[in-house]
Amino acid sequence: MSGSTASETLATVIAHLRDRQHAHLTALGEFLSIPSVSMDPAHAADMATAAQWMVDCLQRIGMTRTEIVATAGHPIVFSEWLDAGSAMPTLLIYGHYDVQPADPIDAWHTPPFAPSIRDGNLYARGASDDKGQVMAVVAALDAWLHTFGRLPINVKLLVEGEEETSSVGLRRFVRTETERLHCNAVLMVDSSMLTPQHPLILYGTRGNCYLEITVRGPASDLHSGTFGGAVENPFNVLVRLLASLQDGDMRRVQVPGFYDRVRTVDDAERRLLASLPLNDAVLQAMTGAPALAGEAGYSAIERASIRPTLDIHGISGGFTGPGKKTVIPAQATAKLSMRLVPNQDPEDIARQVIDFLRRQAPPTVSLDVHILSASRPVLIDYRVPEVQAASQAFEKAFGALAGFMIGGGTLPIAADFQEALGAPLVITGFGLPDDNMHAPNEKLNLSCFFRGSEMIAHYLAALASCP
Amino acid sequence: MSGSTASETLATVIAHLRDRQHAHLTALGEFLSIPSVSMDPAHAADMATAAQWMVDCLQRIGMTRTEIVATAGHPIVFSEWLDAGSAMPTLLIYGHYDVQPADPIDAWHTPPFAPSIRDGNLYARGASDDKGQVMAVVAALDAWLHTFGRLPINVKLLVEGEEETSSVGLRRFVRTETERLHCNAVLMVDSSMLTPQHPLILYGTRGNCYLEITVRGPASDLHSGTFGGAVENPFNVLVRLLASLQDGDMRRVQVPGFYDRVRTVDDAERRLLASLPLNDAVLQAMTGAPALAGEAGYSAIERASIRPTLDIHGISGGFTGPGKKTVIPAQATAKLSMRLVPNQDPEDIARQVIDFLRRQAPPTVSLDVHILSASRPVLIDYRVPEVQAASQAFEKAFGALAGFMIGGGTLPIAADFQEALGAPLVITGFGLPDDNMHAPNEKLNLSCFFRGSEMIAHYLAALASCP
Repeated sequence: MSGSTASETLATVIAHLRDRQHAHLTALGEFLSIPSVSMDPAHAADMATAAQWMVDCLQRIGMTRTEIVATAGHPIVFSEWLDAGSAMPTLLIYGHYDVQPADPIDAWHTPPFAPSIRDGNLYARGASDDKGQVMAVVAALDAWLHTFGRLPINVKLLVEGEEETSSVGLRRFVRTETERLHCNAVLMVDSSMLTPQHPLILYGTRGNCYLEITVRGPASDLHSGTFGGAVENPFNVLVRLLASLQDGDMRRVQVPGFYDRVRTVDDAERRLLASLPLNDAVLQAMTGAPALAGEAGYSAIERASIRPTLDIHGISGGFTGPGKKTVIPAQATAKLSMRLVPNQDPEDIARQVIDFLRRQAPPTVSLDVHILSASRPVLIDYRVPEVQAASQAFEKAFGALAGFMIGGGTLPIAADFQEALGAPLVITGFGLPDDNMHAPNEKLNLSCFFRGSEMIAHYLAALASCP
Repeated sequence: MSGSTASETLATVIAHLRDRQHAHLTALGEFLSIPSVSMDPAHAADMATAAQWMVDCLQRIGMTRTEIVATAGHPIVFSEWLDAGSAMPTLLIYGHYDVQPADPIDAWHTPPFAPSIRDGNLYARGASDDKGQVMAVVAALDAWLHTFGRLPINVKLLVEGEEETSSVGLRRFVRTETERLHCNAVLMVDSSMLTPQHPLILYGTRGNCYLEITVRGPASDLHSGTFGGAVENPFNVLVRLLASLQDGDMRRVQVPGFYDRVRTVDDAERRLLASLPLNDAVLQAMTGAPALAGEAGYSAIERASIRPTLDIHGISGGFTGPGKKTVIPAQATAKLSMRLVPNQDPEDIARQVIDFLRRQAPPTVSLDVHILSASRPVLIDYRVPEVQAASQAFEKAFGALAGFMIGGGTLPIAADFQEALGAPLVITGFGLPDDNMHAPNEKLNLSCFFRGSEMIAHYLAALASCP
């Protein structure tokens, strides 16, 4: 690169990144103003707008070829810069442009799609999950392309629009387009650091099995005065079924077979977790709960990482408005999901839960269970050079090597990348645990955003000299 | 009355009622078009409109004095015609002009506040509960006043606007205005017949204890990936608490002391219930449920009449929209109520339930329980002449004497009438069990409406000769 030393080159790139911080923030603000809520059909047009915005942005910074890949759902943005030559490694970078719904809207201090900066944070739905992280990558690519007209390695970029709805289209794309996606490593930029001083690389993720359970009783809603006592109330049955899934003392899931395939985690791995700045007091402060709670015999971070869980997310039916209404609802529906750990299989788990519920459901109701998603857990060898180089890039940008743990959240696409492409995954990101991802007042720490883009710039350079 | 015989007089009144059916229906349609939903603050103006509509109507038919009585909530309409003289008995007639909320709106075949006639039924929110029944009374008063310029007895009419929100204002009014409300009998017209051929008089009603239970965990909604397993999910706790209230095999409420004050019902009274056309097959057909269910050892009609119950009406918090969202909600809230039988005390029961829940709630959450209403059950001596005369009036209008049972629903004001006025209550009405009171597609059987007004006309005459 023009005869300058590697460190001079990097210094130029980093200086450019810092000069352009305001411009990167402005671009991110534009991106965040598009309410690209993938799970709400009312936002279908916004999804297309967000995808096109991404394409325009990547073309502007000088990526060689950028296209919109149609899927049965929301489109994928696929972009390449492959001019480093076949001797250089290829990095596939992954992010997503879709966001969670913003409800409950009333709980936001500023509107979710009108980005607002307060106290060093940018508030907006998607700020942290994942538009801000995607734009940190874009800023790094821009810095290399703008200063030196090239990237240190070949880069392929995948930005999908269905991360919040199970990545159906991208999963198919990855499974069928293994040639086009061929790479030496996959960098997934869609997760959180532990603190602004503690970067984190996930050497696996929990899977997920999301169910919707409906209990149907009377043909229509009934008055509990006239019929109360004579007929089954679907809510009364539903709460018994839900309560049976987990015991209240040990907080163990009571579905037979649920723990059969849970991988035994050895003491070394538990020590690795224990070394992270995530003791129970830290976690309790993060949640603001009166006290932590969970499966007996494990620390809070273990319960949120290497142990499976069961969480109810919502229950609908009947009457929940102001005041009181004495209705026996025709039906009641619960949404719940289980986070699964290696080597649990989400399809097996779904079957076990459904069987368990069916055995208990009385003949006085009908029971429907729908599997809304089933994503496998992932386990990665974190000792490979492509992963370790990422930790070192964090050290350069943030002043600290990354910690390593299995992530509690689910990245449905990670298992597909691993199996279809056979390349090591680097699952990391620049969010923070208190970013309110999936909750009101989502935010992005601006320092993490700027340093995150520097980490990417360093990582591209480091991969150029990977063995 | 102009020297005609009593039966000629009645024939004239009934003939007038039949001539005016279309006009009465038109008036009822007007009344039903006012969305007087008492529990929704957004409908406060509609409540005032409905009260004034009632006043105008009563003045038009010739009631001597009609006034709007302000309360802390929605106003009471109080109307009198006392020109029969002090030698004649006074009947206090009760009804209400407020209605239940219309949700779920989407389930209505025609709009809830645009009355629509199909197949001999009038569909609208409030058609049966209770505007249609009130207008049957108004039609009968109108027929007497129009044909003979007078009523056979003195009549006081109370039409309240808070029946669906616990009658707070009227209960105070009844307790403090015992002089103005002095009467020889109270006719409450706000319930149902068994079938169009089987009138029904209630010799009591179940009480009610309505609770709102909130479990609070984390300070704000959390992502179940990041925090699932580490922190208590308020839903998981809430379903365990709710499930503990009733056992799934015997369907008995498990709160200690709950059954202690339940009156023992002797075989004679159980036979009275068994003689009604309400066997299990009939009840199952009414509900459209796959099968009936309830407390072991009792028939369905017993469970809906002389036995207490517990019904969950709605559970809120978290996410219930389309798709899936993996949220651990900051809080989860359930609405539930218990129907209580003589001699259970709703305040005692509320305390027992709250204590029971508090003993079980883990220290990892905070628990709030609010009593939304507490209404005592009522028991009446149905052998007194004022009650028996009503049964005979039914025979004249509908061709059948009334059956007698303890009603499953709750009329909070009934206990106040009984205690404050010391007069026998006649709790009856012209609704039907399939009228969808409190549910979408509420309707009123037009034949019941017309015959109901005739029953009232007969009853007024019969009371004139009560011993």
